[in-house]
Amino acid sequence: MAKEKHPSETTHKHHHDCHHVHEHADWHTHDHSPSHPHTHGDVRDYMNAVAEYRKTFASKQDVLDHTPDPAVREMMLRMEQIGCDTVFDRFDQQKPQCSFGLAGVCCKFCNMGPCKITAKSPRGVCGADADLIVARNLLRSAAAGVAQHGAHAREILLSLKFIAQGRLNLPLLGEEKLRTVCKAFGIETRGQNSKRLAGKLADVLLADLSRPTPDTYETIKALAPAERQKIWKELDILPISAYNEVFDAYHRTGVGTDGDWQSIMKQFLRCGLAFCFTGVVASNIGTDVMFGTGHRATSKVNIGALKKGYVNIAVHGHLPTLVSEIVRIGHTREFLDLAKKHGAKGIQFYGICCSCLAAMYRYEGVIPLSNAVGAELVLGTGALDLWVADVQDVYPAIMDVARCFKTTVVTTSDSARLPGAEHYAYDHHHSNIEDTEKLARKIVTRAIESFASRRDVPVFIPAYEVTADIGFTAENIAEQFPGYKPLLSALQSGQIRGIVNMVGCSNPRVVYERAVVDVADELLRHNILIFTNGCASFPLLKLGYCSKKGAARAGSSLRQFLTDNDLPPVWHMGECVDNTRASTVFGGIAGAAGIAIKDMPYAFASPEWSNEKGLDASLAFRLFGIDSYHCVEPPVQGSAHVEDFLKKGTAATLGAVMKVNTDPKALAAQIIADIETQRKKLGWK
Amino acid sequence: MAKEKHPSETTHKHHHDCHHVHEHADWHTHDHSPSHPHTHGDVRDYMNAVAEYRKTFASKQDVLDHTPDPAVREMMLRMEQIGCDTVFDRFDQQKPQCSFGLAGVCCKFCNMGPCKITAKSPRGVCGADADLIVARNLLRSAAAGVAQHGAHAREILLSLKFIAQGRLNLPLLGEEKLRTVCKAFGIETRGQNSKRLAGKLADVLLADLSRPTPDTYETIKALAPAERQKIWKELDILPISAYNEVFDAYHRTGVGTDGDWQSIMKQFLRCGLAFCFTGVVASNIGTDVMFGTGHRATSKVNIGALKKGYVNIAVHGHLPTLVSEIVRIGHTREFLDLAKKHGAKGIQFYGICCSCLAAMYRYEGVIPLSNAVGAELVLGTGALDLWVADVQDVYPAIMDVARCFKTTVVTTSDSARLPGAEHYAYDHHHSNIEDTEKLARKIVTRAIESFASRRDVPVFIPAYEVTADIGFTAENIAEQFPGYKPLLSALQSGQIRGIVNMVGCSNPRVVYERAVVDVADELLRHNILIFTNGCASFPLLKLGYCSKKGAARAGSSLRQFLTDNDLPPVWHMGECVDNTRASTVFGGIAGAAGIAIKDMPYAFASPEWSNEKGLDASLAFRLFGIDSYHCVEPPVQGSAHVEDFLKKGTAATLGAVMKVNTDPKALAAQIIADIETQRKKLGWK
Repeated sequence: MAKEKHPSETTHKHHHDCHHVHEHADWHTHDHSPSHPHTHGDVRDYMNAVAEYRKTFASKQDVLDHTPDPAVREMMLRMEQIGCDTVFDRFDQQKPQCSFGLAGVCCKFCNMGPCKITAKSPRGVCGADADLIVARNLLRSAAAGVAQHGAHAREILLSLKFIAQGRLNLPLLGEEKLRTVCKAFGIETRGQNSKRLAGKLADVLLADLSRPTPDTYETIKALAPAERQKIWKELDILPISAYNEVFDAYHRTGVGTDGDWQSIMKQFLRCGLAFCFTGVVASNIGTDVMFGTGHRATSKVNIGALKKGYVNIAVHGHLPTLVSEIVRIGHTREFLDLAKKHGAKGIQFYGICCSCLAAMYRYEGVIPLSNAVGAELVLGTGALDLWVADVQDVYPAIMDVARCFKTTVVTTSDSARLPGAEHYAYDHHHSNIEDTEKLARKIVTRAIESFASRRDVPVFIPAYEVTADIGFTAENIAEQFPGYKPLLSALQSGQIRGIVNMVGCSNPRVVYERAVVDVADELLRHNILIFTNGCASFPLLKLGYCSKKGAARAGSSLRQFLTDNDLPPVWHMGECVDNTRASTVFGGIAGAAGIAIKDMPYAFASPEWSNEKGLDASLAFRLFGIDSYHCVEPPVQGSAHVEDFLKKGTAATLGAVMKVNTDPKALAAQIIADIETQRKKLGWK
Repeated sequence: MAKEKHPSETTHKHHHDCHHVHEHADWHTHDHSPSHPHTHGDVRDYMNAVAEYRKTFASKQDVLDHTPDPAVREMMLRMEQIGCDTVFDRFDQQKPQCSFGLAGVCCKFCNMGPCKITAKSPRGVCGADADLIVARNLLRSAAAGVAQHGAHAREILLSLKFIAQGRLNLPLLGEEKLRTVCKAFGIETRGQNSKRLAGKLADVLLADLSRPTPDTYETIKALAPAERQKIWKELDILPISAYNEVFDAYHRTGVGTDGDWQSIMKQFLRCGLAFCFTGVVASNIGTDVMFGTGHRATSKVNIGALKKGYVNIAVHGHLPTLVSEIVRIGHTREFLDLAKKHGAKGIQFYGICCSCLAAMYRYEGVIPLSNAVGAELVLGTGALDLWVADVQDVYPAIMDVARCFKTTVVTTSDSARLPGAEHYAYDHHHSNIEDTEKLARKIVTRAIESFASRRDVPVFIPAYEVTADIGFTAENIAEQFPGYKPLLSALQSGQIRGIVNMVGCSNPRVVYERAVVDVADELLRHNILIFTNGCASFPLLKLGYCSKKGAARAGSSLRQFLTDNDLPPVWHMGECVDNTRASTVFGGIAGAAGIAIKDMPYAFASPEWSNEKGLDASLAFRLFGIDSYHCVEPPVQGSAHVEDFLKKGTAATLGAVMKVNTDPKALAAQIIADIETQRKKLGWK
């Protein structure tokens, strides 16, 4: 533990040179005012960069003119007609967005501020400069993202434990997955029943979520490639637990704690690993163990699939436990009869955002309608009788639309209420977990009552509906070919030039769903295969990219591969925590090749990202050595150091960087060029 | 788990009234634009309130004119003379502070923003209104405060564990405290050696820090008054663990999760309990167990006590483990000889902020110099050879001053680095905890080297120095009288009218240290006894309030009481986590009276608070039913609901509210009036 050579010591060039001191009052009278160059570097002139960036922001009119899904356009016009605000109106009303906030130089982390870094005020009250403030803001966003996906993981792991304890009466449908994962963790599986094993696995995963004392992060040790583990250890970014790293992040970003932007960015990387292995991987494992990995299926998609005359129930959010029970109850004869008694033809489920994407290939007929940004538009059809919301990406704005159309909104999580919604929920301590079926029955009953009481509500359904192939998993991909060798061969031969995982939320800064579609078009045309999940997958689902017919959009060699294997050009892998599936396939093919993931022709793209957790999702892929591509800037333009760290600095350490271009076609061109460079380095033609 | 009646359902009065719908396009054409009153309430016109509030902000000149400590004034002028920026210059440069930030209506929690609530934009892009945004900002600040004090607790509990494991070679000086606390937790103490008990106690406290599964918060169960436990349970604000509630706070405040400001404020209260019982109480217990409760002592105070010709070492921050070892090593014959060999007269320790306040009454001669805001001024004396900084309230600005005066700065925590500082620290995983003595030796050696190499640095020490009586604990107060009955009698008789715990950090919004002193003067004059700790205690220490002579400032009846008992008018209880001591005495006297704490003539005042953790400190006292008083506003002026919740709403539930008045004398008058009201209700004359 000798004195470390800390990089920042060498980069801080303008240190004071005070050895000319004398013992009288004016020994040291040089000017420390802001304009003096050696006080603390120049403040970057971010104002132009931010102004230029802001000019690229879309307007509602841009969305109306260019959004790719005609159903979205029709519903936007409909909402305008009835005088309902949407995301797009509010985004326009918020213009011009604050320059300091966009640049990341606004600090509100103590009550001496708010402070902002400008040429006139190059430091916050505490002395924090732009680098430190930008880095701290970025770390806090990333840590919040860990808490978000981490809370998702916690809910699922609690469900697993409650099943093991017999408090929650759900079957474990993913027995095979359970045993495979237990083996990877070194949990003895022979002679153990599934419930017992599930309990043990939950405990191990909960320990990685929560341990306060330094110890091994078991999920990383069990599941990460050795090459990566070595790099992460050398960088000293192995997390202790997800809880601990989030706690540490908010500790060190507090006033007067971590004063070093590089040290802050180290914690940012630590948070990225906790996000990946607990927030995403543990969530995915737990979901697959409880509800099975699902199967390939076809599904109707888009609001044209909304059925008049049915009790229409939408599930919105991320937590599968109660949703699974609601869908089961809604499909029972008892409730079908009840619905019919109230004049309905039946009960139909729909989905918004991840709840739906997790459900659609596990249960028959949960129809995907929209991601979070489009939720108001879906409610604006007036076709929904009940809307069940749990956590994340449930914008409070939905309540105004729901009220207009008398759609009953139900909230089910103690962490997420909505004024005006009915609350049938697990409490903070899950003391009523035994009531899961009761809650589900109550909610479906309310849906039927709601159907009966809202016959007078007008319904407007644009007639856009397609069919999509869904339910791709690492397991069923490996089963189909079989193994990863055929995919590797197709990559090596150049039939497939590369694979891109396209995900991420939406953001009104760019034309809604246009960036995703534009990037996808270019990639496919250049014979690059696409995986997708989460919010970004909605335009791809709705516009036919996930159907086999979509192969027509691919370049000739990829098209041939898809036709030979009876596959769509975009492989839909589920909800956002199913990024695990994409990375498993990425790792599987790389493993078959004996090549490090970072050297493969892979990319991660979240063109329209906006969530805090979206910041971590791209970071997680960069931690694996996969470049990330975006049409939306993170708030780092105020610090050249932090921006360079993200966009250049991690190339040498992680083998991956973040690349941003607000023009989707230019972004796609960059991805294609980078994939070709990777191929060249590998000597693949 | 029936449908809860949620208060917000009844308060949201402007719901849409849409039963007049008809099946054609214009069935619903009323205006949803921002100006329409029923869309979502009126946006509060916070601009005037914020502008008025900002007018009260102090300027550097105000501080020069009115700060009570002449040493501060002289050092400010000295810094100006040599051209060194301070907190006060930077605060002036930051003017005018952002109105949206001050009002709490700026949201940066997703990358669709930044958003701000104005009449033109009454909702964020997601639909969040001012209530929700203000509440979310407040919760995130409070949760960060939990992480900050909670990280402090974690460090101490890890030290306890490492001692128990034999990895850390420190004695357990608080054996009696250890056994008393273990008994309260139901840990069997008979036949158990101290190390073993310390390990068990650490495990229990670490479980309250970290558990992910719903279970009892043992510290609350063991230590909180039954009356409060009942109230907290009824309010459903019992936390699961500190980690979990922080995680939940950042989860639910993420985009599209908790849309209900009241639900957010419930989590705010939960965070307050986790802050109190893990951040503060567990830290205090662990510190007392390791380093003893200390003893009454007298200490020199203020920069006049700085000694020329000595190796001068300042400790700054909050973590006691390494500091204790540094002080021990610095007092050994070996290092004294080494210092003398290098031409020094000896080695002297000083302290900034809590590290010092925890050390001053446990080790001989650690002299308190300043709180965080004055740290630059202390460095500006040029008298310090080495400055050891760990976590919290170490402003990055100290590096510029240290560089000018060639003061060696050493950082010792992985969570807190400073560019340009030398880093001799525990690593993230504490893998080098065994090196504690080695680190301490290295640091003291560096101090001696630094002394030797900076003989040419001019030293300027304003000659202000006083003596203070320190080291008040619940234990030694109860021992002195003995028991709490004599204090209760003095309260009942009116000899002491009430007791106020005066604490909190500093904030350049008010004249530095003036608000604390003004409030203290008024309270004492009205025969109100004062307890103090942390940053606010520095002006009271430096200006004689903590010496017996200070009794002259008290009104006649209090003065008599103090003289009779040979006590100062302000009882100094240590560092910020020693709030536990004040609340123990509060609880002890109330217990002796058989009266609930909330009904006693008590108050909490942090007149100049600024930290995120400062928000929780006052909340913790309100959770106990004690009103909190401040000269600094929290950022809630943008929401009438949230402001009312803090300042009125919790009266009915907790029996306490937050009161703010920017005029210290008016604030003191309010405290005095409220205490008299409490007395009247009790029937005490």
